Amino acid sequence: MSKPKFNVGLIGYQFMGKAHSNAYRQVSRFFDLPVEPVMHTICGRTEAAVSKAAEAMGWQGYSTDWRKVVEDPNIHVVDVSTPGDSHAEIAIAAAEAGKIVFCEKPLANTVEEARSMVAAVEKSGKPHAIFHNYRKAPAVGLAKRMIAEGALGKIYHFRAVYLQDWIADPNFPLVWRLQKDKAGSGTHGDINAHIIDMARHLVGEFEDVCGHLETFVKRRPLAGAIDDKLGAAASTEMGDVTVDDAVIMLARFKNGALGTFEASRFAVGRKNHHKWEINGSKGSVVFNLERMNELEYYNNADPEGTHGFRVIQATEGSHPYAGAYWPVGHIIGYEHTFVNLLADAFKAIGAGECPSPNFHDGLANQLVLDACERSNASRTWERP
Amino acid sequence: MSKPKFNVGLIGYQFMGKAHSNAYRQVSRFFDLPVEPVMHTICGRTEAAVSKAAEAMGWQGYSTDWRKVVEDPNIHVVDVSTPGDSHAEIAIAAAEAGKIVFCEKPLANTVEEARSMVAAVEKSGKPHAIFHNYRKAPAVGLAKRMIAEGALGKIYHFRAVYLQDWIADPNFPLVWRLQKDKAGSGTHGDINAHIIDMARHLVGEFEDVCGHLETFVKRRPLAGAIDDKLGAAASTEMGDVTVDDAVIMLARFKNGALGTFEASRFAVGRKNHHKWEINGSKGSVVFNLERMNELEYYNNADPEGTHGFRVIQATEGSHPYAGAYWPVGHIIGYEHTFVNLLADAFKAIGAGECPSPNFHDGLANQLVLDACERSNASRTWERP
Amino acid sequence: MSKPKFNVGLIGYQFMGKAHSNAYRQVSRFFDLPVEPVMHTICGRTEAAVSKAAEAMGWQGYSTDWRKVVEDPNIHVVDVSTPGDSHAEIAIAAAEAGKIVFCEKPLANTVEEARSMVAAVEKSGKPHAIFHNYRKAPAVGLAKRMIAEGALGKIYHFRAVYLQDWIADPNFPLVWRLQKDKAGSGTHGDINAHIIDMARHLVGEFEDVCGHLETFVKRRPLAGAIDDKLGAAASTEMGDVTVDDAVIMLARFKNGALGTFEASRFAVGRKNHHKWEINGSKGSVVFNLERMNELEYYNNADPEGTHGFRVIQATEGSHPYAGAYWPVGHIIGYEHTFVNLLADAFKAIGAGECPSPNFHDGLANQLVLDACERSNASRTWERP
Amino acid sequence: MSKPKFNVGLIGYQFMGKAHSNAYRQVSRFFDLPVEPVMHTICGRTEAAVSKAAEAMGWQGYSTDWRKVVEDPNIHVVDVSTPGDSHAEIAIAAAEAGKIVFCEKPLANTVEEARSMVAAVEKSGKPHAIFHNYRKAPAVGLAKRMIAEGALGKIYHFRAVYLQDWIADPNFPLVWRLQKDKAGSGTHGDINAHIIDMARHLVGEFEDVCGHLETFVKRRPLAGAIDDKLGAAASTEMGDVTVDDAVIMLARFKNGALGTFEASRFAVGRKNHHKWEINGSKGSVVFNLERMNELEYYNNADPEGTHGFRVIQATEGSHPYAGAYWPVGHIIGYEHTFVNLLADAFKAIGAGECPSPNFHDGLANQLVLDACERSNASRTWERP
Repeated sequence: MSKPKFNVGLIGYQFMGKAHSNAYRQVSRFFDLPVEPVMHTICGRTEAAVSKAAEAMGWQGYSTDWRKVVEDPNIHVVDVSTPGDSHAEIAIAAAEAGKIVFCEKPLANTVEEARSMVAAVEKSGKPHAIFHNYRKAPAVGLAKRMIAEGALGKIYHFRAVYLQDWIADPNFPLVWRLQKDKAGSGTHGDINAHIIDMARHLVGEFEDVCGHLETFVKRRPLAGAIDDKLGAAASTEMGDVTVDDAVIMLARFKNGALGTFEASRFAVGRKNHHKWEINGSKGSVVFNLERMNELEYYNNADPEGTHGFRVIQATEGSHPYAGAYWPVGHIIGYEHTFVNLLADAFKAIGAGECPSPNFHDGLANQLVLDACERSNASRTWERP
Repeated sequence: MSKPKFNVGLIGYQFMGKAHSNAYRQVSRFFDLPVEPVMHTICGRTEAAVSKAAEAMGWQGYSTDWRKVVEDPNIHVVDVSTPGDSHAEIAIAAAEAGKIVFCEKPLANTVEEARSMVAAVEKSGKPHAIFHNYRKAPAVGLAKRMIAEGALGKIYHFRAVYLQDWIADPNFPLVWRLQKDKAGSGTHGDINAHIIDMARHLVGEFEDVCGHLETFVKRRPLAGAIDDKLGAAASTEMGDVTVDDAVIMLARFKNGALGTFEASRFAVGRKNHHKWEINGSKGSVVFNLERMNELEYYNNADPEGTHGFRVIQATEGSHPYAGAYWPVGHIIGYEHTFVNLLADAFKAIGAGECPSPNFHDGLANQLVLDACERSNASRTWERP
Repeated sequence: MSKPKFNVGLIGYQFMGKAHSNAYRQVSRFFDLPVEPVMHTICGRTEAAVSKAAEAMGWQGYSTDWRKVVEDPNIHVVDVSTPGDSHAEIAIAAAEAGKIVFCEKPLANTVEEARSMVAAVEKSGKPHAIFHNYRKAPAVGLAKRMIAEGALGKIYHFRAVYLQDWIADPNFPLVWRLQKDKAGSGTHGDINAHIIDMARHLVGEFEDVCGHLETFVKRRPLAGAIDDKLGAAASTEMGDVTVDDAVIMLARFKNGALGTFEASRFAVGRKNHHKWEINGSKGSVVFNLERMNELEYYNNADPEGTHGFRVIQATEGSHPYAGAYWPVGHIIGYEHTFVNLLADAFKAIGAGECPSPNFHDGLANQLVLDACERSNASRTWERP
Repeated sequence: MSKPKFNVGLIGYQFMGKAHSNAYRQVSRFFDLPVEPVMHTICGRTEAAVSKAAEAMGWQGYSTDWRKVVEDPNIHVVDVSTPGDSHAEIAIAAAEAGKIVFCEKPLANTVEEARSMVAAVEKSGKPHAIFHNYRKAPAVGLAKRMIAEGALGKIYHFRAVYLQDWIADPNFPLVWRLQKDKAGSGTHGDINAHIIDMARHLVGEFEDVCGHLETFVKRRPLAGAIDDKLGAAASTEMGDVTVDDAVIMLARFKNGALGTFEASRFAVGRKNHHKWEINGSKGSVVFNLERMNELEYYNNADPEGTHGFRVIQATEGSHPYAGAYWPVGHIIGYEHTFVNLLADAFKAIGAGECPSPNFHDGLANQLVLDACERSNASRTWERP
């Protein structure tokens, strides 16, 4: 009622735009926030499409010029959900205009851009956030809490995969996500970035990495006007794939743990298989995004003869975020990770704090991605 | 824009009220409907609570008198989401007032009530629907489609359990769901009703049943003012549990298939374990609500040596409902089954048809429940 | 070395004969027994086959006349592994000849036969055993131990299925297992008997049951000389199937627990799916024969927020039988349940005790089977 | 009967000695071999122990001097099942004595030794074999057959882990497997060797690797006379751990596939977790030793909407090795992989061929292990 309103301007209306819009629509319905996010303006280049998106997704208005949104004095929060090549320009402009800035991951396509973005938000002094939304799944939150409480003891191993198969067909066209100038990288920045973030969130900072990036299919039919992986049409003309199809990476963490990482779009049968396991001296946990309401947990302190990995349904009231939704055993979905992230972000903003994760996490992630790319070139281990 | 508006009046604002409200809020965001549902009025007896619910859940207004909602000429749809003892009275009044009537399951607490409700909606000639929402999970929709297409062949077996454990503690209080006058029955009408509906939906009509209802804990602390299973406080005074804690039931279907059913609130460790398996001459399917985005499928026509139950992630664009949401592998949750149900219902209404499932399904379900209760008394098989 | 020798005469050399022979061959290799079982004589009607079996399976000699084996003063143990229609005659003769008698399950084809067999072994005063071998899987032994120690508390539910699909094809021939005069019954005595035994072993005695037996395919091609389910040839002549294809059964136990049972040979995709779950006030366990080295366990006393079904690999030295074999995580197979059963049996015999399970268990099982058959006829609940 | 006899001399009687002995005892019982293996002599240094082992495991005689076994003209096959530091000496002596030589894996502790061993068996011209037994699990055999038949298409990814936790406790003593002079390496030669062999077997030869070996706990209590991981007693005196506790490794294969490998004895909760996944252009397979009777398979050619990983129970008569044992759904265990390996080996020997896998595989494996160790030192990619 008397809560301070925060008008949001969302730049981008594709897959991420849809997910973010839903989150803004839902966050106040499930969480009691100190502030009121208002769905003020959505922005995209094509008026017919963005006006339709505005109505479909519940925005009060729309714009076809992101600069106007950034400069609009009625906008308090600018949410950058465009492809990675425009993140830096928009986010920096927003920061310079004194806005709170939210940004999709990866923060940028290069370390240099990411550094500029961090500099901009630090200069503005305004809150900033990055959409590493998987941190906000209840099961991941539970893992984080257990680790913080020492339930796993000293961590020895982190092993993660993020496997998809949507371009395994060599005739799948050359969409923007397969073009380095737009996407920055392929699996590396798109999905390896997610499991790198999980590692930083749950295990800690990286000491050094050794990685290899591979492009299995080097030329593909041009995609024409298609600009998202969800819809694509073939062309007879061919073009070069300029990003990686898969990446494999080893890591050492500063705390002595070892890590393995693999991201691929050629893992036939794996649709959105973001899975990781952590082994510590006192126990282990396993998470799989495709069963994101579950956390497997092994407790080494269980009585003799009764040890085993148990499947915790992270849907109890005592589990992070879960109490905001439904009774135990009634699962939530992918979209709720965005809702939870916004709940945390607006709670932080209401408390005068900077949300977590934020641009610093984005930069740290970018540094690991960059070290891996340098390692791919140098064929040796590199530090972030 | 020029879509006809349907103003909804929702009676009830507890667990089901929250789920229904979310579905009304979201349905037009994900589905392109021929009509526009409007969240007009929510109704509950306690003004402080219902006014708060109205705002939290997105209703334009609220009422403390369901009769006024039913009689309000601005209301087109009355959604009855109260405990079962008031379904008949409200739904019949709504039908008599010429409203479209939606009703939570079970349709009623007795066959007699259910018959009156069907008579009322038949007399009014207006559309009606019942919230057997689990029919609308994508994986269930896929199973239904496969059966309709003959992928399973002749069906031999249906076996289902719906297992919970929320009252296994003998000190859990005597909430309304444990009182026959309010809830009608215990597990039987609450959750056995769900798997009976699944059986009717997927296998067909029942020939006869044989069942046994059990109350393991016959007296419990009074619950005081607590009226929902989600929050409860103990009392030193004790009262009689007048409903079943568990039910086990055998069935024969008219098509010759056999069925087994079990519902319990004493299955320690099972939270919302609604699981069933169908075996047919050509293949089998397995569904588990706790992993509701998956359907297990065995195809007897697979090549020699490669048979096995496969886990279909029912999140592909070609799967029922899934295309409305996110890319493959990005799961949806419990609440989406209500969204999908409303999408189907408003599509049917827009087409001038009666939604499915509807009051006829509610009555048919009630007849099976009743046959099982008669069997429990007679100790022999009974027909619905 | 100086251990007393027990010469064994095995009657039957088909599937069970192979499994028993392996067990006699292996039991002393893995267990330190007080006595030495000697593979003295194997017996079957067809000399060419039984002589070959004797050599292949490691028996010192063979016979084509079970009466001679029973009367042979050098034989101490007679193991009856023939089809059920000859169990009673052979076992009673063996008991009358003063032999220790082991018998495959089901003990007999009728209660009357089973009673005579129990009377015979009681009269002889010699040890007797029945091959309810699944009791001897390490995971089942662990469940038994946990229940005995109170880990599950008061038991509320037992639900079991034993599902196969080897006769789902209507052209599968009329083998002896589908003929009542030889097999006694179909799924009922063959595999429902197994889960009934599990129930008696783990939950306790039955109060009453209500069951239904079904024959989905009532006529089949004659099988000719084929006498085992493993090999079969079709014929153009048809014959009547005189046993059940499937059975469904409800039960109440004397301790107040409820049970559901289902056995089928028409569960397409299920090969040897013997699975059960027990829910008690303090926890639950789940067993699946196809993953027989695992026991799922839910402990209600786990700390808040960390509950879940855990997969115990019952391969640790502290688990029943497992210490006799390989290190943890190195699984054993189906055949080892027979080895373990013989180990227990010969340990009991060495200690001057009667093995468990034994003929009394066989009779008790038969009484439950019989009550279910009576219930199938009377359409009401019957006591064993 | 008239089959040629092959007298076997087994050197070693610990864990592997027990597994090999069982396999010699059982192989002719389940497989119809062209030759007859005879359990002639078992050999160990401690007479009391080896004489007891001979009787317990079914050997005709024993010896305390491996040289006598190797020189015994009655011995045709020498099976080297000692720790790795004595493999080369014994195997070479056996080859020089004209024996058929079987050897446990890893073939040797160094490439140099392995080369000498290969030279020795090549010079002798006699058959040789190595116990990479996991190749012989039915599910692995099925995967091999499917790959050979093209069911997976072009292979893109191989990812494997072999995880254990038996030394995660820092107080676990310094057994021989933790001493470089005896064991050669830790997880690397012990279990990474297994998954490297799987990769060579299923994917093909390695192009280059990049790896890191880690010792998490660098000093441990001395173990005293304990010489096997299965039994161990602590000491107050401490010693240096001179082998790796864990290894992580990336690989490129000559056919363009990528590989990730991880072996650890610090993966708390993982007992014998040997798991791998292969992704090819037409499908994928997953194997887990702890559920070694199952192969998960994804067929990209399945009809739209019905894709999924299916669990094949590799227990059908048409599956490799499975037909020798029990009906479908009746599982076999760890020990059977040795039985199957001997069946293949003696069939090859009977046919005048060299078994597979053999010393060439052992050397090739050693070269990959060595490249990884060099990479660990050089911090760059190395070729085998």
